Amino acid sequence: MNRKYTDDSLALHTDLYEINMVQSYWEDGIHNKRAVFEVFFRKMPFGHGYAVFAGLEKVIDYLRNFKFTESDLAYLREIGYPEDFLTYLKTVRFTGTLRSVVEGEIVFGNEPLIRVEAPLAEAQLIETALLNIVNYQTLIATKASRIKQVVGDEPVAEFGTRRAQEMDAAIWGARAAVIGGCDSTSNVRAGKLFGIPVSGTLAHSMVQVYHDEYTAFHKYASTHKNCIFLVDTYDTLKSGVPNAIRVAKELGDQIRFVGIRIDSGDLAYLSKKARKMLDEAGFPEAKIFASNDLDEHTIINLKAQGAQVDSWGVGTKLITAFDQPALGAVYKLVAIEEDGKLIDTIKISGNPEKVTTPGLKKVYRIINKQNGKSEGDYITLDWENPQEEEPLKMFHPVHTFISKYVTNFEAVDLHKNIFVDGKLVYELPTIKEIQNYVKKNLDLLWDEYKRILNPTLYPVDLSQACWDNKMANIEKVRQKVAKLKY
Amino acid sequence: MNRKYTDDSLALHTDLYEINMVQSYWEDGIHNKRAVFEVFFRKMPFGHGYAVFAGLEKVIDYLRNFKFTESDLAYLREIGYPEDFLTYLKTVRFTGTLRSVVEGEIVFGNEPLIRVEAPLAEAQLIETALLNIVNYQTLIATKASRIKQVVGDEPVAEFGTRRAQEMDAAIWGARAAVIGGCDSTSNVRAGKLFGIPVSGTLAHSMVQVYHDEYTAFHKYASTHKNCIFLVDTYDTLKSGVPNAIRVAKELGDQIRFVGIRIDSGDLAYLSKKARKMLDEAGFPEAKIFASNDLDEHTIINLKAQGAQVDSWGVGTKLITAFDQPALGAVYKLVAIEEDGKLIDTIKISGNPEKVTTPGLKKVYRIINKQNGKSEGDYITLDWENPQEEEPLKMFHPVHTFISKYVTNFEAVDLHKNIFVDGKLVYELPTIKEIQNYVKKNLDLLWDEYKRILNPTLYPVDLSQACWDNKMANIEKVRQKVAKLKY
Repeated sequence: MNRKYTDDSLALHTDLYEINMVQSYWEDGIHNKRAVFEVFFRKMPFGHGYAVFAGLEKVIDYLRNFKFTESDLAYLREIGYPEDFLTYLKTVRFTGTLRSVVEGEIVFGNEPLIRVEAPLAEAQLIETALLNIVNYQTLIATKASRIKQVVGDEPVAEFGTRRAQEMDAAIWGARAAVIGGCDSTSNVRAGKLFGIPVSGTLAHSMVQVYHDEYTAFHKYASTHKNCIFLVDTYDTLKSGVPNAIRVAKELGDQIRFVGIRIDSGDLAYLSKKARKMLDEAGFPEAKIFASNDLDEHTIINLKAQGAQVDSWGVGTKLITAFDQPALGAVYKLVAIEEDGKLIDTIKISGNPEKVTTPGLKKVYRIINKQNGKSEGDYITLDWENPQEEEPLKMFHPVHTFISKYVTNFEAVDLHKNIFVDGKLVYELPTIKEIQNYVKKNLDLLWDEYKRILNPTLYPVDLSQACWDNKMANIEKVRQKVAKLKY
Repeated sequence: MNRKYTDDSLALHTDLYEINMVQSYWEDGIHNKRAVFEVFFRKMPFGHGYAVFAGLEKVIDYLRNFKFTESDLAYLREIGYPEDFLTYLKTVRFTGTLRSVVEGEIVFGNEPLIRVEAPLAEAQLIETALLNIVNYQTLIATKASRIKQVVGDEPVAEFGTRRAQEMDAAIWGARAAVIGGCDSTSNVRAGKLFGIPVSGTLAHSMVQVYHDEYTAFHKYASTHKNCIFLVDTYDTLKSGVPNAIRVAKELGDQIRFVGIRIDSGDLAYLSKKARKMLDEAGFPEAKIFASNDLDEHTIINLKAQGAQVDSWGVGTKLITAFDQPALGAVYKLVAIEEDGKLIDTIKISGNPEKVTTPGLKKVYRIINKQNGKSEGDYITLDWENPQEEEPLKMFHPVHTFISKYVTNFEAVDLHKNIFVDGKLVYELPTIKEIQNYVKKNLDLLWDEYKRILNPTLYPVDLSQACWDNKMANIEKVRQKVAKLKY
């Protein structure tokens, strides 16, 4: 490509303003001040009742390897940064403490997902990459979980790579989809990297190569024991299904005739007709795989129409989160060191929902011991312990008069220590373990939170101390602004 | 990450079915049959009047390096592929011929963008990655071009990394955005890799770190000559703008007070008020930068309201192509070798627009020599030369009675040879050259094709020979299906 810089580290995968700010902090000598940032999103993606957190594995990988390479520094030199600042940047590693919910955790708007406590410069430099990773992977895991809610126990295959937003989205999106509930991906590289199951059979082009389905299916069957024949290259009911049946009959026990795949046309109608043809031909066990721009909405409708589909392939709509292709997680400073102590910080905004909640916080899931269901999430200041409060008062953070008292509960801290003083202290689970964790977590939620349309709003409440602290900080800023004179 | 396979080549960045089909071809001994595939999309993204092609640089890089590594083969072995097939895969490189429109080309639905002529196995294996790359990059270049149509000559900065769909989307999306018309990106890595301009100043967190804007702006100004102050951390008009003016006055010639950035609130109202305040304070040259979920729709509305914005920052909506986050380009077999000759192939579908156009094709842009404007694109079979036809009959490929005769034209072949027999024969242009190419190409189009709402439909016509060939192929399949008996 005739590139000037050939190596490609991720330390520069950041917005330029992060580096500009760090330059000011460094010149001012405050780059090692302790700073605390929190990652959270405000609005639930897709209007869904919950989200599934993903991205931590890549965040860990990114932080462990954080380092400006010689070519990174050469580029920064080229665009004008001074030599002494570059000499400093060369030394920067991630030495902070990071607490986070784990992958597969069920999460909600306005609760801190990740808390970074680190020297100001480090915490600032990693902002962009952390958001880039967590926003996308959490979005896709959540979308997959929505789809899984509608599909139930039937298998779902992710195969959106060709429509994904470039290559990282294809592989990390496949992984997030599997975390959220998919059973497999078509992307072989994702299979290799993440140890997730891969699936796929044949495309229309193979039928075209052999000029007819009969020959193509035979050829496929001669090299692959498990056969799913794609039946819509020319005419699903007049040509595809009959040819699949014919080949299955001819080969009998030589193959395992898993079923057929329909990839276009009226899936409700075609699947019902095809089911009948397969049954009548003596293949009641043969499965019908459906695909073609499917998502939770089309699937719920196909099911309502009695479509005879046993297995689902989901591509574009999942891998791009088509109906809401971005999650808006942000990274906000909640405290900064002054004279050796952490001082809370706040960002005010004309939009009330954009006012941040100051201070180091924790998130507890309040689980009712009697029924095993969650009563809601409870955000506290770092020093609080809700387990010691009995009954626990939970109140709505905006409409504060809406409240309830909870007794006989377990308060589960959702954050785990991931890095402590730059050292990784967390052992990464396998994908299988993460999938099981999601299932276990979803069992904590009443069904009303899990439906895809108009779910009940899950409570995410602030503790009294956290709420009081926020109000006090808002008041302080207000008074400061009121006093300004120019 | 405790990964089993640590290296990561892109040869496995493919759908599993490609490998399964290739296994059948190889077992059947037809893997080296000459095959021709074409890449095209059907529907114009965003309902826009044209699209801007991007992705070729990465496609070239991918094809040059195409090779299964030892760990790729180890993984394929693990999931069950036989040893002799793996021994074959190990030898596979891209040895084909690839013709393509170049990056920055203005393109339309239903015209072949890339034509791959290669041994069947190679052509099949690269399908997924090619589509993954071209779909996303073309989508973003097109979205950026739409935004640029509305913005006009004012600068546009791309800064969507934190909301991009993972890291590749952030950097390749930034590049595509610059191809489509953006002036810079915030992503430093993209700047380093692609040599595109980077921009950025400071975030709200810097104001929070110093607890007030006055101090933060001063500190920023002490390390950065060019100053754009972010004014909406607490209160734009009561605090942000006055503080920016105060610092600019105090520092005078010590800095270049470029202007202010407003990132929230009512941008129309705030920008007008801020403009007045800046003018009255003696800074008529200071620019106002606006951002906050902008796209072509919000920008056209802000302009209609007389917003005083000089420069635009565009994030989420551009980098994710928010209103249509996937382009549906496909890769279809149009011919396959039989007895040493290429035979045309077709895919029929219940949806008429999904019927493919068989045969090797070329795309010509028919440019009227008198006014320098394009009369439309003209798709021919490979052997045709429209330049020799005078007058040239152009007719609508569906409503064939709609037609016109064109004289005094230049027929420009839009495809260039990129690879010939596996050898790269194309010299990659710089980003600057690509940007200029886009501008030159857009000049060929009447304004009616370029507006963002309800553009006039640009003609993409088939030659008579191409149309006749398609009809003959459809008829052939129809007769074959009609004759099927089971």
